[in-house]
Amino acid sequence: MKVNVITISRQFGSGGRTVGRKLAEALGFKFYDSELVKKISDETGFNEKFIEDKGEHSTYTSKLASIFNGRQSYGAMNGQSTADYLWGIENKIIKDVAEEGGCVIVGRCSDYILRERTDVLDIYIHADDEFRANRIVRNYGEPSEGIEKAMKVKDKKRATYYSYYTERNFGDADNYHIALDTGVLGVDNAVKIVLNAIEAMEQE
Amino acid sequence: MKVNVITISRQFGSGGRTVGRKLAEALGFKFYDSELVKKISDETGFNEKFIEDKGEHSTYTSKLASIFNGRQSYGAMNGQSTADYLWGIENKIIKDVAEEGGCVIVGRCSDYILRERTDVLDIYIHADDEFRANRIVRNYGEPSEGIEKAMKVKDKKRATYYSYYTERNFGDADNYHIALDTGVLGVDNAVKIVLNAIEAMEQE
Repeated sequence: MKVNVITISRQFGSGGRTVGRKLAEALGFKFYDSELVKKISDETGFNEKFIEDKGEHSTYTSKLASIFNGRQSYGAMNGQSTADYLWGIENKIIKDVAEEGGCVIVGRCSDYILRERTDVLDIYIHADDEFRANRIVRNYGEPSEGIEKAMKVKDKKRATYYSYYTERNFGDADNYHIALDTGVLGVDNAVKIVLNAIEAMEQE
Repeated sequence: MKVNVITISRQFGSGGRTVGRKLAEALGFKFYDSELVKKISDETGFNEKFIEDKGEHSTYTSKLASIFNGRQSYGAMNGQSTADYLWGIENKIIKDVAEEGGCVIVGRCSDYILRERTDVLDIYIHADDEFRANRIVRNYGEPSEGIEKAMKVKDKKRATYYSYYTERNFGDADNYHIALDTGVLGVDNAVKIVLNAIEAMEQE
């Protein structure tokens, strides 16, 4: 299999984004993380903060809200909820960047959105709570108090969004070709392991 | 981390046992699969077929049966159900072989049983249904008719046993350090990937 696209799904704080960035550097691939949010912003007119919040973390509450409040929508949205509208745009943009090839895409259910392609390697990065909490405090400057709870809330939101749109369970190993625990393996080793895997696959 | 023990959890037909055997050969490790069943047989007096059926595949029905029928037990079992008794023996034997070190253990919740050790690498091997069905028909000489259903039944039993004794979900990536899809990566590449990972971890 020739790997043209890599998707990275990750637990918050696991170093998944860093793994993705380093893979892109090593392979000469484009790296889509905030770049993807910018593309969605350009397409929709919503600002990046709004897309970050509503997009990947659209949760059960937004579904409830749309039931109780009626579905708010703007011109191009054709009666869809904001979250559903963003989901549609995201799908289109992720499929477009994959079609160009040579890219690493972080998050946003890209593993699911690109499931029909045969040139995509789906990676999941996770780690134990302690490793993630330490990393978040150190790298994002978050206060250490309450960090484990904040982490769980973020994980829950991500998982809810994922299962809402994909009908799969986030973190189920069967969704990914390679799942790695950076808490035990280390972030740099995770990068090496994926690069070795790609090399082995492409030798066939 | 110095890896002294490797546990292999696997979907039926994914090639997980083969991955384990090849890892053991490459590393000069002992390989515990049917050898483990033999040890349990020696310890308990139950025959190997009974242990295969009752042990790893003890399911909800055996729990129900023990409620309706009363818990059948023999001398050493101290009023435990057969499945609980076997679970206790299995725990002891798996901890003993891990203590000796230099081994690969297939299945039997060994990832969970050895969770307190810091020298264990937990691997999960899975693959898509088509890959597994073809492998089962080819390697085990099973008839291809009804194979997907038989596969699902076996997966379900294994998952039920696992979650009954561990309170975890079988196949949840967070339980394992490395999870690999042999359907896409191939069995031999899965072996290479794990060997590379061990080399990288031991260089630290």
